[in-house]
Amino acid sequence: MMSYFKNVNLVKYEGSNSNNPLAYKFYNPEEQINGKRMEDLLRFAVSYWHTFTMDGNDPFGEGTMLRPYNGFSGLDLAKARVEASFEFYEKLNVPYFCFHDVDVAPEGANLSETFKNLDEIVSMIKEYMKTSKTKLLWNTANMFSNPRWLHGAATAPNADVYAYAAAKVKKGLEVGKELGAENYVFWGGREGYETLLNTNMKLELDNLARFFHMAKDYAKEIGFDAQFLIEPKPKEPTTHQYDFDVATSLSFLQAYGLQDDFKFNIEANHATLAGHTFEHELHTARINGMLGSVDANQGNPLLGWDTDEFPTDLYATTLAMVEILKNGGLGSGGLNFDAKVRRTSFDPEDLFFAHIAGMDAFAVGAKVASRLIEDRVLDQFIDDRYKSYTEGIGLDIVEGKADFHKLSQYALGLDKIENKSGRTEQLKATVNQYILDAYATVKA
Amino acid sequence: MMSYFKNVNLVKYEGSNSNNPLAYKFYNPEEQINGKRMEDLLRFAVSYWHTFTMDGNDPFGEGTMLRPYNGFSGLDLAKARVEASFEFYEKLNVPYFCFHDVDVAPEGANLSETFKNLDEIVSMIKEYMKTSKTKLLWNTANMFSNPRWLHGAATAPNADVYAYAAAKVKKGLEVGKELGAENYVFWGGREGYETLLNTNMKLELDNLARFFHMAKDYAKEIGFDAQFLIEPKPKEPTTHQYDFDVATSLSFLQAYGLQDDFKFNIEANHATLAGHTFEHELHTARINGMLGSVDANQGNPLLGWDTDEFPTDLYATTLAMVEILKNGGLGSGGLNFDAKVRRTSFDPEDLFFAHIAGMDAFAVGAKVASRLIEDRVLDQFIDDRYKSYTEGIGLDIVEGKADFHKLSQYALGLDKIENKSGRTEQLKATVNQYILDAYATVKA
Amino acid sequence: MMSYFKNVNLVKYEGSNSNNPLAYKFYNPEEQINGKRMEDLLRFAVSYWHTFTMDGNDPFGEGTMLRPYNGFSGLDLAKARVEASFEFYEKLNVPYFCFHDVDVAPEGANLSETFKNLDEIVSMIKEYMKTSKTKLLWNTANMFSNPRWLHGAATAPNADVYAYAAAKVKKGLEVGKELGAENYVFWGGREGYETLLNTNMKLELDNLARFFHMAKDYAKEIGFDAQFLIEPKPKEPTTHQYDFDVATSLSFLQAYGLQDDFKFNIEANHATLAGHTFEHELHTARINGMLGSVDANQGNPLLGWDTDEFPTDLYATTLAMVEILKNGGLGSGGLNFDAKVRRTSFDPEDLFFAHIAGMDAFAVGAKVASRLIEDRVLDQFIDDRYKSYTEGIGLDIVEGKADFHKLSQYALGLDKIENKSGRTEQLKATVNQYILDAYATVKA
Amino acid sequence: MMSYFKNVNLVKYEGSNSNNPLAYKFYNPEEQINGKRMEDLLRFAVSYWHTFTMDGNDPFGEGTMLRPYNGFSGLDLAKARVEASFEFYEKLNVPYFCFHDVDVAPEGANLSETFKNLDEIVSMIKEYMKTSKTKLLWNTANMFSNPRWLHGAATAPNADVYAYAAAKVKKGLEVGKELGAENYVFWGGREGYETLLNTNMKLELDNLARFFHMAKDYAKEIGFDAQFLIEPKPKEPTTHQYDFDVATSLSFLQAYGLQDDFKFNIEANHATLAGHTFEHELHTARINGMLGSVDANQGNPLLGWDTDEFPTDLYATTLAMVEILKNGGLGSGGLNFDAKVRRTSFDPEDLFFAHIAGMDAFAVGAKVASRLIEDRVLDQFIDDRYKSYTEGIGLDIVEGKADFHKLSQYALGLDKIENKSGRTEQLKATVNQYILDAYATVKA
Repeated sequence: MMSYFKNVNLVKYEGSNSNNPLAYKFYNPEEQINGKRMEDLLRFAVSYWHTFTMDGNDPFGEGTMLRPYNGFSGLDLAKARVEASFEFYEKLNVPYFCFHDVDVAPEGANLSETFKNLDEIVSMIKEYMKTSKTKLLWNTANMFSNPRWLHGAATAPNADVYAYAAAKVKKGLEVGKELGAENYVFWGGREGYETLLNTNMKLELDNLARFFHMAKDYAKEIGFDAQFLIEPKPKEPTTHQYDFDVATSLSFLQAYGLQDDFKFNIEANHATLAGHTFEHELHTARINGMLGSVDANQGNPLLGWDTDEFPTDLYATTLAMVEILKNGGLGSGGLNFDAKVRRTSFDPEDLFFAHIAGMDAFAVGAKVASRLIEDRVLDQFIDDRYKSYTEGIGLDIVEGKADFHKLSQYALGLDKIENKSGRTEQLKATVNQYILDAYATVKA
Repeated sequence: MMSYFKNVNLVKYEGSNSNNPLAYKFYNPEEQINGKRMEDLLRFAVSYWHTFTMDGNDPFGEGTMLRPYNGFSGLDLAKARVEASFEFYEKLNVPYFCFHDVDVAPEGANLSETFKNLDEIVSMIKEYMKTSKTKLLWNTANMFSNPRWLHGAATAPNADVYAYAAAKVKKGLEVGKELGAENYVFWGGREGYETLLNTNMKLELDNLARFFHMAKDYAKEIGFDAQFLIEPKPKEPTTHQYDFDVATSLSFLQAYGLQDDFKFNIEANHATLAGHTFEHELHTARINGMLGSVDANQGNPLLGWDTDEFPTDLYATTLAMVEILKNGGLGSGGLNFDAKVRRTSFDPEDLFFAHIAGMDAFAVGAKVASRLIEDRVLDQFIDDRYKSYTEGIGLDIVEGKADFHKLSQYALGLDKIENKSGRTEQLKATVNQYILDAYATVKA
Repeated sequence: MMSYFKNVNLVKYEGSNSNNPLAYKFYNPEEQINGKRMEDLLRFAVSYWHTFTMDGNDPFGEGTMLRPYNGFSGLDLAKARVEASFEFYEKLNVPYFCFHDVDVAPEGANLSETFKNLDEIVSMIKEYMKTSKTKLLWNTANMFSNPRWLHGAATAPNADVYAYAAAKVKKGLEVGKELGAENYVFWGGREGYETLLNTNMKLELDNLARFFHMAKDYAKEIGFDAQFLIEPKPKEPTTHQYDFDVATSLSFLQAYGLQDDFKFNIEANHATLAGHTFEHELHTARINGMLGSVDANQGNPLLGWDTDEFPTDLYATTLAMVEILKNGGLGSGGLNFDAKVRRTSFDPEDLFFAHIAGMDAFAVGAKVASRLIEDRVLDQFIDDRYKSYTEGIGLDIVEGKADFHKLSQYALGLDKIENKSGRTEQLKATVNQYILDAYATVKA
Repeated sequence: MMSYFKNVNLVKYEGSNSNNPLAYKFYNPEEQINGKRMEDLLRFAVSYWHTFTMDGNDPFGEGTMLRPYNGFSGLDLAKARVEASFEFYEKLNVPYFCFHDVDVAPEGANLSETFKNLDEIVSMIKEYMKTSKTKLLWNTANMFSNPRWLHGAATAPNADVYAYAAAKVKKGLEVGKELGAENYVFWGGREGYETLLNTNMKLELDNLARFFHMAKDYAKEIGFDAQFLIEPKPKEPTTHQYDFDVATSLSFLQAYGLQDDFKFNIEANHATLAGHTFEHELHTARINGMLGSVDANQGNPLLGWDTDEFPTDLYATTLAMVEILKNGGLGSGGLNFDAKVRRTSFDPEDLFFAHIAGMDAFAVGAKVASRLIEDRVLDQFIDDRYKSYTEGIGLDIVEGKADFHKLSQYALGLDKIENKSGRTEQLKATVNQYILDAYATVKA
């Protein structure tokens, strides 16, 4: 069998002193964090689209990526990519991958042909999975690239498009079941609006809810018990996306009786585009019991579009891992690198460098987070800060034994109110100390 | 009785050709729009804080405002402001005003004294209202300025602060009842967090919900049947405000069983800070039956803080009025100018110029919006655009008669999908034509 | 000869009451503004790339545009576009067009072939121009789309790329001369950096300056006396673009002795991406004698990328025209619609609707601006505001007769400082009155 | 002598394992970096305003800070602050401080009294400095807080205000000389505009340049040879600040012949508000020979105003120190903490925690940066990347031996263009490795 990445061997953990760019410096799959092997805790996944399909084009330029299968086209290209992908998973030693239908198989002249192409490639993938350790974290249907989706899919003003979307998701659920996907993702690519001047938002949202109910019913019918995940994003490509952020999507799910059937797939760069930190979105999902999976990337705070960079910010990975560890892990979810190498990082090797960068950054984050939690650094501070709700009038409030009469009477009797400093600066310095310390101790 | 605004007489409608800066050019209270007098439709309110209390300080400088009561202090100042305010309402000929407790009366050495001060001023206001046409649109409690609120009020980590907040709102509800307020507003000034590192967000949200339930119960107990309004804002002063936007606040109300007891008070500048258009927030509230009232101002899209400018953008006022007219008006709500003159517009006359600018802008917006609706310019386009849902497979979808089997079979049988242009550019040109036309016709 | 836009006839001025979407409501080429025919004052240009070449793809989807030449490819496509373009100019009755080399002719297998293709199409264009009233406002070289430019062109880290860029601009200058272009534009598509970690910014800027000097020398050599224009943009596609804004580009030109040889081509959406208003950038260029031409479009302030929308905001067009009129017009420059129809406005007719929307918006802006200037509404206010510099100590300051001794002595003797209100709100209301009035008077 | 910070002793370096919140973990003044003691390299300064004068108010609330001199007022308060400040410097062991005139002494009833107050406090400071190691990094005049500056100072439309500003700066230069200030800073607090509708920008800029020339002349006259520094900021408090960023300010200095007399004081949060990274602004200043000093703070990328947080981001401190080390240090400049504790961090101890956090973050940054430079990690990559300019056609370009003829001929002869990957992801991973490594090695 041909090798697509000849210059790269199995990427191994070599420790923090290694100068080998094709080795992990911090990610050691066997190392235990919080009683789990790193690999089992972090559940990294490779995104098929950014890694194998994306060619590096941007709104101002054509594709730049040098890929070993650049000469192929059609189904041949699709097959070469499958072969390359499993070589990549093996060399990177990564436990999961994710894909959209059109990432893996080309569209045909009509929907039947498209499904036929998809079936052929899915069979091939299934065959490869038999001898690979790498499993399918989730699959999904691309309903935003083809011109037919220009006004949306399940929120399209055109019922034919809606039906077409239903057919695609039906097939997607079947494919997910076939390949043992642990989740199924809904990213509302063009579910939103360009302008309210031409939009019936109420009808579009009603239709979207009907769509999700049908999807749920069909998954149940075929016995596909993957976790359904909604992926919030505030804007881009449309001016306003309906799944703006976790809270907005939660409001939608609540309103339409769908809250128990979905969780969220939270993407870092989508969070920041919505005006939130990554950890805010994770936290909001977690305390609502809705944290399902993560699209692990990062944005550039000075740029206003989705840059989908590989995650390297140790603050973000640390605070994300605090949320994930407190969630007891991600359940059936994982850390999917919904991230693309820069258009200027066009070598095949850059795909390895980028994944290594991201995996190492999350490995450090996991270690720092587990120590922060173990040492109760933040938790103890928070417990002390809210102590007044564990006794006296505070306990009455929490236990529902207070009303405005009681509270007002209490307040009128107060001599003085004393607050405590929030210690933001000291807490940030402590996080720095933990980050710098995580690796030092390993080394000692 | 002394006059505080000697240089200003009653502001009257003089029509679009007037060069009198102290006259309305477009706002004619008696003119009918959509079968209502403009005054009854628009329900303008003056904000006490920005107009009478705000001194023009900003984070880099001291107060600049020249006010006729600048020499006074304490209760004397409070009384002079009440006198000036009613003169202002009368000269502006405006039907409503709004206030926070601390806008009208100074805090005392303790809560009892604060309430005593408030009682004294409320009595004075009540006396003035007897002979004034101007009514109280809403009142509220300021729970963000005094240092005691530095960590929040109903979401404070300190139960004493929570109780103090309850006492203030209890009093606020009583004052609202006393003065016949038609609404009661909750703006979560510091209900949010500085950093998640020191925050128990779940407890804070639970406590906030408890607080709202107690408020609701107390209002019922005393027979105060004003509409409760939550005012979303995404950030500032805190890094993250819990009432981020309409959707987020709706999610909160849904989760805690409060949806039937609250509507929203939507502020234009808060919308844009959250990454939404003003009309998006109004629309979202409207289609959820939650559009209560409006804080009519505008922000500067190039500045990242709440500039609270007087509304002059005719696009914003037009699209806002489309939503308001489609809502059948604002019910007990109104258009409250939560707007401040620039720090550099420090003359008392600037207060009049600014309100005139805002009222004229909304008058134009109302006229343009009513014609757009009357001519069905947008509605007809939207009806045509979504026509496929009124027949065949589209009707099946809407009526719940479709599932993934039926839709997939239908899609597989489709020969070609045809979409229609969304015509964004043409629709925008049409709005321009209607804006430029509104006033031309009046003139003819 | 075949017609490419069969559904559209000559677009005429029909006045503000017209319901014909294919007529001008406000743009009347023959109407005089400020002593000039509107057509001569506004000098509208069609952008070849957005109008004829752009297919509607975006980072999440494929092309959507229905174009009459969609079946063609290679040089046949290029020729069909030329034919269609001149039909479009004629039907729109527009005096100018603009293009990049690759918009009009496809790249060949090597640079020689590329030039050969270009020559063939340029000849064809020249032939069409003989019988068309439409002239070439400016041309330019696209040095950002092909993968070779991924690290930049005149700032590339690769000298081969730099040489290639020089060859392209050399050819562009020759083409400009051949077709009588009145300007030549430099937009630094990828002249900037992805990250400072791998960038020698000093060398890149030095090389860019060398490039501009060579371009200037070559134009002089061949007798091409078009105005050279730099088009600032702060970011996108690169993380940082060197021509960030007018001031930054001016600093560069000053530092390298190029200020007398260049002016600016100012794009509205680039201004807002840089954190400036459109009028700020125009004003900055104007007072430095550097206002050359305009890319007339608009952005969406809630979106962080270059949306290149057709300009419809009457505030922006009015304030832009104030600057342009005060500049005594644009000289050899014009108003080029560097704007694209939305991806969802895919019909050929949308191209007409969009240009009409933009031309009408600028026609209104021109009329309002000319009246504001004629009535000295803003100028008189400004003269009064700065009056203290026309006498006494102020005049001393302006005439260079003051120093810190004199000023300090004067200040120590001042009894009180009195400032005047800036009247921002009143001035904004006045602008609204003028906008609403412009069309009313026409109508009477 | 009384102690103002009784709970705090001398803050010492205790190393990275210390749990003492009042100890340095990474900043060791005696440790050598790049052949300099850390203290001499970093030249930390305390900002008088944020640390001793600021009371914690924000646009929505009153002051919160608990300070040991809270009971005092007028000159007594000023004196108590001086005493406290020198105790603070000593306990923090910091080599520099900075102040505005009004930070240290209250304004009087008129300018003469203001100067008298200032003289009294300056004498006291001078006395304290005799026995303190802490020196004056820079002083400046506050020309933005008092209402008289509401329209600007040296760009005011009022010549009286301009003269007043001149008097203040004249005095400031004298005070700087008296206290041995090593720099003098100009931050154009309100030098900008609220709206162009009422602004004569050209006159304002001309006047500003005249002001700077007079300042320069006066400093020379009195023999005050401090470095003059301009501090760019894009907006806030005004809508547009004239000193937008380094490039804009440089353009201004160039245009008015002031480039040789000024350098820049670069603030991190001002950089990000302008759409730049901190390192971009430092780099731009450095390659233009204009890097003078640094206001070391950080912003919150999700907030649109100047948050002036203490710097804790190790990426920012590392990349800043790369620029500073490559600049050969900061000369007479330093790292001034223009940063304020959060309003919720109101204890006096928080002032120490915050400075320790910032000093430790810059100490780590300095160490990481010096190793990156020493190992030539980035420099070697950059040298390789631009190698083509050291030979052949590239060298011709750099040496001015190329023109468009030569380059075009060369390009036409090129067979193929080969670019090299920019390796962004790998470089970021390397920075992470260096950050995590810096402290590990210390520990071993």
